[in-house]
Amino acid sequence: MSASTPYTKINQELLLQIKAVVGAENVFTEQAILEDYNHDETEDLRYNPEVVVKPVDTAAVSALLRLCNENHVPVTPRGGGTGLSGAALPVFGGVLLSMERFKSIISIDMDNLQATLEPGVITEEFMNAVAEKGLLYPVDPSSKGSCFIGGNVAHGSGGPRVVKYGTIREYILNLEVVLPTGEIIWTGANTLKYASGYNLTQLMIGSEGTLGVVTKIVTKLIPRPQLSVVMLGSFLENEQACAAVSAIFRAGVIPSALEFMERRGVEWVIRFDNIKFDLKDDIQAFLMIEFDGNDMDVLLRDCERVNEVLEQFGCTEVLLADTAQQKEDLWRMRRTMAESVKSNSVYKEEDTVVPRAALPQLINGIKEIGSRYGFESVCYGHAGDGNLHINIIKAGMSDEDWKNKLKDGIRELFQLTADLGGTISGEHGIGLVQKEFMSIKYSEINLNLMRGIKMVFDPNRIMNPGKIF
Amino acid sequence: MSASTPYTKINQELLLQIKAVVGAENVFTEQAILEDYNHDETEDLRYNPEVVVKPVDTAAVSALLRLCNENHVPVTPRGGGTGLSGAALPVFGGVLLSMERFKSIISIDMDNLQATLEPGVITEEFMNAVAEKGLLYPVDPSSKGSCFIGGNVAHGSGGPRVVKYGTIREYILNLEVVLPTGEIIWTGANTLKYASGYNLTQLMIGSEGTLGVVTKIVTKLIPRPQLSVVMLGSFLENEQACAAVSAIFRAGVIPSALEFMERRGVEWVIRFDNIKFDLKDDIQAFLMIEFDGNDMDVLLRDCERVNEVLEQFGCTEVLLADTAQQKEDLWRMRRTMAESVKSNSVYKEEDTVVPRAALPQLINGIKEIGSRYGFESVCYGHAGDGNLHINIIKAGMSDEDWKNKLKDGIRELFQLTADLGGTISGEHGIGLVQKEFMSIKYSEINLNLMRGIKMVFDPNRIMNPGKIF
Repeated sequence: MSASTPYTKINQELLLQIKAVVGAENVFTEQAILEDYNHDETEDLRYNPEVVVKPVDTAAVSALLRLCNENHVPVTPRGGGTGLSGAALPVFGGVLLSMERFKSIISIDMDNLQATLEPGVITEEFMNAVAEKGLLYPVDPSSKGSCFIGGNVAHGSGGPRVVKYGTIREYILNLEVVLPTGEIIWTGANTLKYASGYNLTQLMIGSEGTLGVVTKIVTKLIPRPQLSVVMLGSFLENEQACAAVSAIFRAGVIPSALEFMERRGVEWVIRFDNIKFDLKDDIQAFLMIEFDGNDMDVLLRDCERVNEVLEQFGCTEVLLADTAQQKEDLWRMRRTMAESVKSNSVYKEEDTVVPRAALPQLINGIKEIGSRYGFESVCYGHAGDGNLHINIIKAGMSDEDWKNKLKDGIRELFQLTADLGGTISGEHGIGLVQKEFMSIKYSEINLNLMRGIKMVFDPNRIMNPGKIF
Repeated sequence: MSASTPYTKINQELLLQIKAVVGAENVFTEQAILEDYNHDETEDLRYNPEVVVKPVDTAAVSALLRLCNENHVPVTPRGGGTGLSGAALPVFGGVLLSMERFKSIISIDMDNLQATLEPGVITEEFMNAVAEKGLLYPVDPSSKGSCFIGGNVAHGSGGPRVVKYGTIREYILNLEVVLPTGEIIWTGANTLKYASGYNLTQLMIGSEGTLGVVTKIVTKLIPRPQLSVVMLGSFLENEQACAAVSAIFRAGVIPSALEFMERRGVEWVIRFDNIKFDLKDDIQAFLMIEFDGNDMDVLLRDCERVNEVLEQFGCTEVLLADTAQQKEDLWRMRRTMAESVKSNSVYKEEDTVVPRAALPQLINGIKEIGSRYGFESVCYGHAGDGNLHINIIKAGMSDEDWKNKLKDGIRELFQLTADLGGTISGEHGIGLVQKEFMSIKYSEINLNLMRGIKMVFDPNRIMNPGKIF
């Protein structure tokens, strides 16, 4: 934000106007509520908005944006508040636009295998609703129990099943979007193919609320596979577990999930989440591999192939989980890992992604950089996509170093990621906290194209200012 | 193009400069060559360029664009020349930029299941090259034997396997692009996930050469399924064949192709392509359904399920092709249909796409509109995606009506498509010939966003002017 385009503070007159267009009962200025909405799940960052607005329909969002645009008031859209990049933080104050009242699953169209829903629907509730009808919506980030699908769209979310099913990009067909001017558009069509000009749907996905506000979402759904099996392979070394990942695909199979977990992550979930697991002394890392489908013989044959691959990489033991309880236990271990680490240490989370064969170099590089800077790390994530979440643990680092020197270490980490052909976020987004690292991977030309696109949609820069670039 | 920003004609001095930057041996002004490049496969449209340029590398493309940008010379990129929307027609003259010398498959990375290649590689040659290594690149438009993968990127291409594998959007990871300024960028990263700002890769896909020139392409590859079976179901009525399509998915299966063919299309391939097929008198339409995978029992079980569905929709006969020859014969029938119709009548092709349960309404609507306007039609296409190609046949229509009244009929057709939740192109693009219909589906607000994005990339509007909007 340049000094020459200051934002307007919300005075009493403007507040009355906001109340007039969205309904006074949907506008909140109490300190306690401002504080409820001044943070997401990103580290310990807090920025109070001037007002929290919870509109009830598209017309209200439209009127609100029009008013804010005319008055140069910044608007920060917010989904479930589970973001890890600070994209929902109202760093310039202004309006915090919570989409929590957009909670309707408008339709599940069994003829077309499509659903239309509002952005405030919790991802897992949507998944369950379509599962009841025998369908699958496979985009399930770890936060699925509390994140909103609108936030998933804004961040181009992934999750463990991307490796087989693709990211949210492959499931969003069409979006109703309110532009900063208050104009309402549909970005595309409710079709599986689209070659009708620039793909505004794809442009909105991952734009982190900087171009407009999504108010309706049309998704693709697919038939739900009936069966699944989960394998857990134990490894003596991180590097070998990581090296096995790309070999699994070379064996000609496509798992529905392929997760890496470092020993330390498993230790933390055992300690803090009361999960029972027999953790052997010499084991350094795990791969959790899921196959789904409709034929158990096929799934077991795929498991057998993977087993042969794992043996070549020093895997000492393979557990096969085929009961619902066994599978759920393993998934719970993986899913609670982030929470467990975060609740019990000072940490920063980085969301690296590289071509998957580069994972061994990435994990070795992380440890090497950590040893030089004095931080520890717990790594886990969607290894099948080359997507590794790195929880950086303060450990013995001084407060001074944590505050000042760590940034250089993180910069080295992202430089490594970029050198390996990767990027600085696979699924968490850039938001506020990764912004300063964008230039490691992207040229000023790229960033200027993004800035130019931003200005086409939002010339007054009211939409989620201070994010991405 | 407004009158206030005329393009510069290429005079002798400019021609010398072009020769200086790309090599004189790569610049052509002979009338015969201009005529070779004055058309694509779109109807009978012809526009001569002023010069044909065939650069050999990215640096030459960069220098050429910089020169053209500085001098306001329009540049029309061209792939294999197989386009059906006129996107490769140099309607303002200027430079025809043929990418035919970008023919290198730079690498097929077996560790990461990725390939890097140049845009002038013929799609089928690339498919074959990866197939030899046991991998699948599944995006195979009917023109795969002559189209370029760069053209496929420019049009967001699909083909029959989209129904299981998705469009080219799901396989393009990263693009090297020369901007009109001559600047060279990579749009993203070589990763399966990407949440690092606006997705410029996705924006380039389907932009039809209006934003820049793609000079390198990084694709995702997947393990190649070992087995396939093809079924051909015969129907007494178009409507019932179309109605069966969505029911197939409701049965919980995902075919690797699901094609609709109208009787008349089959008649034409029998007559003109010398294909042997026992076409029964009462049959009006066919569904061709393919399953692929690695287990024949599973494929046959899926076929059995589909069989049960087809019976409910008046399917009178199902052929099961499982030998390579039988499968190839059926696919050849489907693939040569467009060619056969086009070679033997005055026609126009429209590329409609709707939510697939709307196919019966679409096909009935096409015939009804045709009966009012006096044109006939042959319909076929990727019914599993709701994507129907409509070959409009002049038949008894007068030259006068064909020239003047038909447009109104096509407009009605696209209005129907839009009313059914569809769009005016599923995979052929907008180019020149669908441009006037964009407003049926997209508001002026949408179009202005597209125009704004165009201006960010290409303020002098040199890149493929006159297309999309």
